[in-house]
Amino acid sequence: MSIRIEKDTMGPVEVPADKYWGAQTQRSINNFKIGGEKNRMPLEITHAFAILKKAAAQTNAELGVLDQDKADIIGKVCDEILEGKHDDQFPLVVWQTGSGTQSNMNSNEVIAYRAHVLLGGSLEDAKKKIHPNDDVNKSQSSNDTYPTAMHIAAYKMVMETTIPGVEKLRDTLAEKAEAFKDVVKIGRTHFMDATPLTLGQEFSGYVAQLNHGLKALRNTLSHLSELALGGTAVGTGLNTPKGYSELVAKKIAELSGQPFVTAENKFEALAAHDAMVETHGALKQLAVSLMKIANDVRMLSSGPRSGIGEILIPENEPGSSIMPGKVNPTQVEAITMVAAQVMGNDVAISIGGSTGHFELNVFKPLIATNFLQSARLIGDACISFNDNCAVGIEPNTPMIQRHLENSLMLVTALNPHIGYENAAAIAKKAHKEGTSLREAAIALNLLTSEQFTEWVKPEEMTGSLK
Amino acid sequence: MSIRIEKDTMGPVEVPADKYWGAQTQRSINNFKIGGEKNRMPLEITHAFAILKKAAAQTNAELGVLDQDKADIIGKVCDEILEGKHDDQFPLVVWQTGSGTQSNMNSNEVIAYRAHVLLGGSLEDAKKKIHPNDDVNKSQSSNDTYPTAMHIAAYKMVMETTIPGVEKLRDTLAEKAEAFKDVVKIGRTHFMDATPLTLGQEFSGYVAQLNHGLKALRNTLSHLSELALGGTAVGTGLNTPKGYSELVAKKIAELSGQPFVTAENKFEALAAHDAMVETHGALKQLAVSLMKIANDVRMLSSGPRSGIGEILIPENEPGSSIMPGKVNPTQVEAITMVAAQVMGNDVAISIGGSTGHFELNVFKPLIATNFLQSARLIGDACISFNDNCAVGIEPNTPMIQRHLENSLMLVTALNPHIGYENAAAIAKKAHKEGTSLREAAIALNLLTSEQFTEWVKPEEMTGSLK
Amino acid sequence: MSIRIEKDTMGPVEVPADKYWGAQTQRSINNFKIGGEKNRMPLEITHAFAILKKAAAQTNAELGVLDQDKADIIGKVCDEILEGKHDDQFPLVVWQTGSGTQSNMNSNEVIAYRAHVLLGGSLEDAKKKIHPNDDVNKSQSSNDTYPTAMHIAAYKMVMETTIPGVEKLRDTLAEKAEAFKDVVKIGRTHFMDATPLTLGQEFSGYVAQLNHGLKALRNTLSHLSELALGGTAVGTGLNTPKGYSELVAKKIAELSGQPFVTAENKFEALAAHDAMVETHGALKQLAVSLMKIANDVRMLSSGPRSGIGEILIPENEPGSSIMPGKVNPTQVEAITMVAAQVMGNDVAISIGGSTGHFELNVFKPLIATNFLQSARLIGDACISFNDNCAVGIEPNTPMIQRHLENSLMLVTALNPHIGYENAAAIAKKAHKEGTSLREAAIALNLLTSEQFTEWVKPEEMTGSLK
Amino acid sequence: MSIRIEKDTMGPVEVPADKYWGAQTQRSINNFKIGGEKNRMPLEITHAFAILKKAAAQTNAELGVLDQDKADIIGKVCDEILEGKHDDQFPLVVWQTGSGTQSNMNSNEVIAYRAHVLLGGSLEDAKKKIHPNDDVNKSQSSNDTYPTAMHIAAYKMVMETTIPGVEKLRDTLAEKAEAFKDVVKIGRTHFMDATPLTLGQEFSGYVAQLNHGLKALRNTLSHLSELALGGTAVGTGLNTPKGYSELVAKKIAELSGQPFVTAENKFEALAAHDAMVETHGALKQLAVSLMKIANDVRMLSSGPRSGIGEILIPENEPGSSIMPGKVNPTQVEAITMVAAQVMGNDVAISIGGSTGHFELNVFKPLIATNFLQSARLIGDACISFNDNCAVGIEPNTPMIQRHLENSLMLVTALNPHIGYENAAAIAKKAHKEGTSLREAAIALNLLTSEQFTEWVKPEEMTGSLK
Repeated sequence: MSIRIEKDTMGPVEVPADKYWGAQTQRSINNFKIGGEKNRMPLEITHAFAILKKAAAQTNAELGVLDQDKADIIGKVCDEILEGKHDDQFPLVVWQTGSGTQSNMNSNEVIAYRAHVLLGGSLEDAKKKIHPNDDVNKSQSSNDTYPTAMHIAAYKMVMETTIPGVEKLRDTLAEKAEAFKDVVKIGRTHFMDATPLTLGQEFSGYVAQLNHGLKALRNTLSHLSELALGGTAVGTGLNTPKGYSELVAKKIAELSGQPFVTAENKFEALAAHDAMVETHGALKQLAVSLMKIANDVRMLSSGPRSGIGEILIPENEPGSSIMPGKVNPTQVEAITMVAAQVMGNDVAISIGGSTGHFELNVFKPLIATNFLQSARLIGDACISFNDNCAVGIEPNTPMIQRHLENSLMLVTALNPHIGYENAAAIAKKAHKEGTSLREAAIALNLLTSEQFTEWVKPEEMTGSLK
Repeated sequence: MSIRIEKDTMGPVEVPADKYWGAQTQRSINNFKIGGEKNRMPLEITHAFAILKKAAAQTNAELGVLDQDKADIIGKVCDEILEGKHDDQFPLVVWQTGSGTQSNMNSNEVIAYRAHVLLGGSLEDAKKKIHPNDDVNKSQSSNDTYPTAMHIAAYKMVMETTIPGVEKLRDTLAEKAEAFKDVVKIGRTHFMDATPLTLGQEFSGYVAQLNHGLKALRNTLSHLSELALGGTAVGTGLNTPKGYSELVAKKIAELSGQPFVTAENKFEALAAHDAMVETHGALKQLAVSLMKIANDVRMLSSGPRSGIGEILIPENEPGSSIMPGKVNPTQVEAITMVAAQVMGNDVAISIGGSTGHFELNVFKPLIATNFLQSARLIGDACISFNDNCAVGIEPNTPMIQRHLENSLMLVTALNPHIGYENAAAIAKKAHKEGTSLREAAIALNLLTSEQFTEWVKPEEMTGSLK
Repeated sequence: MSIRIEKDTMGPVEVPADKYWGAQTQRSINNFKIGGEKNRMPLEITHAFAILKKAAAQTNAELGVLDQDKADIIGKVCDEILEGKHDDQFPLVVWQTGSGTQSNMNSNEVIAYRAHVLLGGSLEDAKKKIHPNDDVNKSQSSNDTYPTAMHIAAYKMVMETTIPGVEKLRDTLAEKAEAFKDVVKIGRTHFMDATPLTLGQEFSGYVAQLNHGLKALRNTLSHLSELALGGTAVGTGLNTPKGYSELVAKKIAELSGQPFVTAENKFEALAAHDAMVETHGALKQLAVSLMKIANDVRMLSSGPRSGIGEILIPENEPGSSIMPGKVNPTQVEAITMVAAQVMGNDVAISIGGSTGHFELNVFKPLIATNFLQSARLIGDACISFNDNCAVGIEPNTPMIQRHLENSLMLVTALNPHIGYENAAAIAKKAHKEGTSLREAAIALNLLTSEQFTEWVKPEEMTGSLK
Repeated sequence: MSIRIEKDTMGPVEVPADKYWGAQTQRSINNFKIGGEKNRMPLEITHAFAILKKAAAQTNAELGVLDQDKADIIGKVCDEILEGKHDDQFPLVVWQTGSGTQSNMNSNEVIAYRAHVLLGGSLEDAKKKIHPNDDVNKSQSSNDTYPTAMHIAAYKMVMETTIPGVEKLRDTLAEKAEAFKDVVKIGRTHFMDATPLTLGQEFSGYVAQLNHGLKALRNTLSHLSELALGGTAVGTGLNTPKGYSELVAKKIAELSGQPFVTAENKFEALAAHDAMVETHGALKQLAVSLMKIANDVRMLSSGPRSGIGEILIPENEPGSSIMPGKVNPTQVEAITMVAAQVMGNDVAISIGGSTGHFELNVFKPLIATNFLQSARLIGDACISFNDNCAVGIEPNTPMIQRHLENSLMLVTALNPHIGYENAAAIAKKAHKEGTSLREAAIALNLLTSEQFTEWVKPEEMTGSLK
């Protein structure tokens, strides 16, 4: 591999000759061989850095502390990064300095040196026309840029992937709730037979869960929309021009299309990541909901002959390498694994969030990575579950009917007429003797067959909330 | 122990002669010997049941399905329970049926049999004037009463203990932020010396954390205010009179003084406990914040001679059984232990919340108990930390001054004047030779002593956000 | 309340006149009003302190640093404590100083002052004949006594409650595995019908889980048997006589009946609680196993008419306050709630264990309390689940038979004879048309009825591992 | 992209013409678009499959159920896979079916079709010479192969990465403990000044933690060495030849160089993943230990001028993009982030492990992925922390000396001579007046200067455990 020499305040470093990065990026590569490829800093962070570096350069120029020419060329490189042209220039792993300084410097170096090349320079030049610290990082510190990149990437992922995914699934479930509104079926509490409801009512509960989850998620976004940028080193805003914080947040909002604002309190924005903790708490709530919903689908579709079997789900692939003809609820399995992952990530984020010290939390890349994984997995898994499973759910009418007719819990409808204890006697007799409720009721002389017909109407038992 | 015989649909059971409870409560005592005294169902749940039973009886009477006399005597016993007169009548543990049915029946039995006695009956009477199921539990199921009691108890705890506790601490920290607004001190990032800020700014970050946490907590309350009551067995509202749900929620709101409403979707309200998951997520966020804040107090007050020592905290008790004269940050230790507990409880609640099946989640007592513990501990710990520690925090001026004067990171103020690399050279030289920045700067011929004086003003370095 | 005045190095404190505790206990009561009654320091810790204080006094006397008379009277009070005579003398909550210093002092004070009374003194005496620090706490520090008490209490709970409970359940399940060894039934993978196995084989998996869990638990006990005592303030053993550590550990082993030894490295024993983390990790593994086992029981027993219904479990109590005749798997619900609690406690313990600083971990009471709760709950819940559920489990033969006969997955037995793809065609045809496998096979001309009879023998499909 | 048509039991599927995979792999690609590149099934699993498929083919041939020629060509492809030649043939993500069936089929298809090509066939051939199910998957099911691959990959990662990494760090810390054995320094408890110890003693605690952690990890390996292979579909071993389980385990042991054995109970091995839960519990314990150790290094090295500063760590890179000359404990930050991640992963694994149903746990890929990440991160992070930080740790003697001389807790040495209360009076006076202990002691007339010199010898205070 051909190399060139770059320098930083600690001295010279060998870097690959054809890469735009410089000494500090290379030091991080050399010093943090942890986890390999899969543990690269999320590309969403890299792209968020491009947004903020462009916004900062423009703001600096506008406020008179950076030449417009420099701001323009910086912006141009940022655009290239956002187009995905330099993804291979960001080789650092998550497990680096906890401030993300090295990824900030990776951005600074790549932008500066690529700009230098765009301006006609050569990577071999000892002095570049654009300086990573003095120009690209102007009015910034890793301490405010990295958390800003976290919020940009997180907010975008939630808006662009998580919410649309959950909404799509929610909409399908709502359609099913409507479509199944007259399908009367047995209810189950304690995993045991209970009084009836409609399949539509059952699905309406899932819709309500996701609606509440979406609302909870949106409630957190105002905190997440706060940007640390302008706080620089410790939150005081040292070395920033007047008006910088507000203006740079405005520009980031424009560039990203999301309603970012400058954080009211920069000290909180650097030293804590409660906004990430807060929003991920809502993602975790969605995971909890999805686990419940998917488990119900798994169990309701179980069988085909020896399970509960009240709904049918699409058959997407052969289910077994040994059992011919087997079909499995694989989409359920994917989304419940995702739910478990999000619940684990929540603990990692909470621990990271709780252990900042003084003016800086140094678990930033951990928090960002777990957050982005959760937000993406929920969105993707909802789409996958929706498209490959939920849309195709249909009631298995014969099974639903058989279960409903056999149910002993229809006896509950008799409570207001003959009292809880008499009703219990009927259910117990029928259960013990394997007969129908009607037979047991008549045998016990507690009511007539006509009364039974009049009082025990499953469809009416589902309707009193209307 | 003297006993009497009570019966339920399964047959006779021996119960202590002097207790109001009946057969089903006793079966639970016999069948669930798990965890002992400390694992009793929280009293807050018992009292919440009293509120809802009274409200249900009144509603039933008003809607014409229960005699007013019966409603009145039921209400009277509920008032006694709320006055704490029957706390010893609720012996069941948390680790019972996951629907809390047995605690619902405990309430039904105690209320019915106490009412019977108040009406002149004897506990020995085979038939009581008030029936636990047909009267006290009328228009109800465990499946909707227990989650209703959960929300009542949880909401009240949050409003009456958690929020006031956090607010009190927040107010004290805000006062400190104001009082310390001119105390310039060294900042620390990565636990290492950094550029200066004021002690007031540092504390303002804590205030911002708690304000965000309180906001996040309040955001969740609308979901928590939804009551399941009226859903009965599976959410359909079987065996309830028309208008019941709305009216009973209104009465509970009146009796409790909190803005409860009937849940939009009763199926969700029985089958999931996302509202509890959601609000506890906010409690966990507060725990995360408190861990950070308390750790800072612990570290800032460390010493007295070989630590960081920039603040002084009250000396409340001898700190050591062996080291004379030792004083420790014990309030910090209590509140950080509480934070760890809440983070653990969050996992228990998430697991419980995610594993409901079909029409009922049967991890209800687990969820309720962990929630109530967290909500109370945060409130209590904030008050304790506030009263015994935070109010007495004072700056340790000599230490603050010494650290500030020694700080190498003041060099950052020179960046705009001489560039990052020259500034780094000064800091490195001073660090290596143990000299001051001024001396190093002059020795390197990078600026004059006058320029140093003009450019490096710690107090100004803290002010650019103003 | 009548009061008296006690003093410590910080001055006078009012204490209840009739209580044995002194100034430092009272300061803790006053300063830590967190959580109330249910949050008292576990009694197991208090009793463990009695064991260690007696052992320390005897050791001190034997090594010549304490009068034998003093050691004797201290030992006598410790015996009283172990008999439960002074449980009301230990009012402190868990949420105190993280070293447990205040509970150590509570022990020191109660022992000293009770000894003083036994020696004829009065609680009103300004000077007591036995000194809490100089006598009872001699050769000790909170820093080594509290972790020693943690290990004593934890080890005893594991040996006396957890292991016997799990073993009892394991034995019952092993009996069931043997009893059900010829009950051929359908298997289920992905919650879907699969090839057959015996009910005994299914239960043998549960036995294997618990056996592995017990082995894992026992593997941890050597670490847990290490006692910190002798490390005193920071692990150096300052102010202890020669030979003290080994002798006091030996005496504790004798008094407790458990194989305690002195920790090889006292610095680890004070500054970390990895032994507690380690053993609780094994408790968490058992919780994971119990969740799986209990869930299977819940699902296998579901019904009675519209579930899987392959096993019958005891009917212990009326299951519903509204649905007459309902029976629920309540023991399953209790033990799965316990499992979720233990999984949450594991996080609290891990966080507490990871955040010690320098020479002392100050999350000790948190760790102890969560550990003891988990260890007890697992033991108690296993006994409850065993006695009230597992012992009564019986196969529901008609349902098992019906499911087995209907199963499409018996087709797997044909793979070696006709290949995976042909077998799949049979299963798919039978599934689609609602016929038997035999019918479909013949219709497809893939084999004769005789071949089907010869090749598809469910009982043989379960036997190849024998 | 050029495509070809492959078929499975569900019909034809378009696959890329140049890829070895077939219909089922492609269905998974199409149906599970979740998480993207970073969420690929770990390559360690793919390679573990190659080991087991080779072992199974050889065993099948040896036991007479597969032609030796077929076994040989299968083995040859497996060798190619192990050489890394086909890594791009395994495109599936973790978030697929929870049994890992699709990854098993991916292996079966790639091996079969690559073998077909090696045997002179073309990928376009409708019928391949080697069949994915009937040949490559012979005597296997996803249900036993995937957990076998999990154990192979996990065991190898622990032995080849985790343990060597932790041992290397442990050895360095042990060297430091020895090198620093005479460096007397102040101890700290509650983050406050305490009695002295040596820096070597402090480091010996870290060594003890890691030794206990390694022992705990090794304790779990016997469970992890058990292989499910031979259980096939539900654990009964259906469709396997006699002697298969033991022989295939022996061959896997030979091929992998690790002591694998066949699982005693195959039902447990498919339905639960307690072995993974168990070993990951030990990884989590190591994470807890590393968090403590690294935090101590972070805090002990804090400064350079306003922190604790008792040790010096290597300066590896510029620490700040804005603060010139700043050096940060970046290796500490990486390893503590890793620790938090492992603690989160433990929750994900526990949830996944607890929610298996009946004969199969379907959270397998989740469990495998989290486990492998944790095991690798701990190993890698220990090496990184060791090489770039621990090996270079040196005492900062002037700071250590200054702290030691100032310490008030040296007063503890006076307890045996003048009693706890008198000693406390000295410490308090010195603290209040800012004087030395000696001055305060003399002023209080409690001892002479000569006595002070004789009694208060810091180096002796550290030595009583020797």
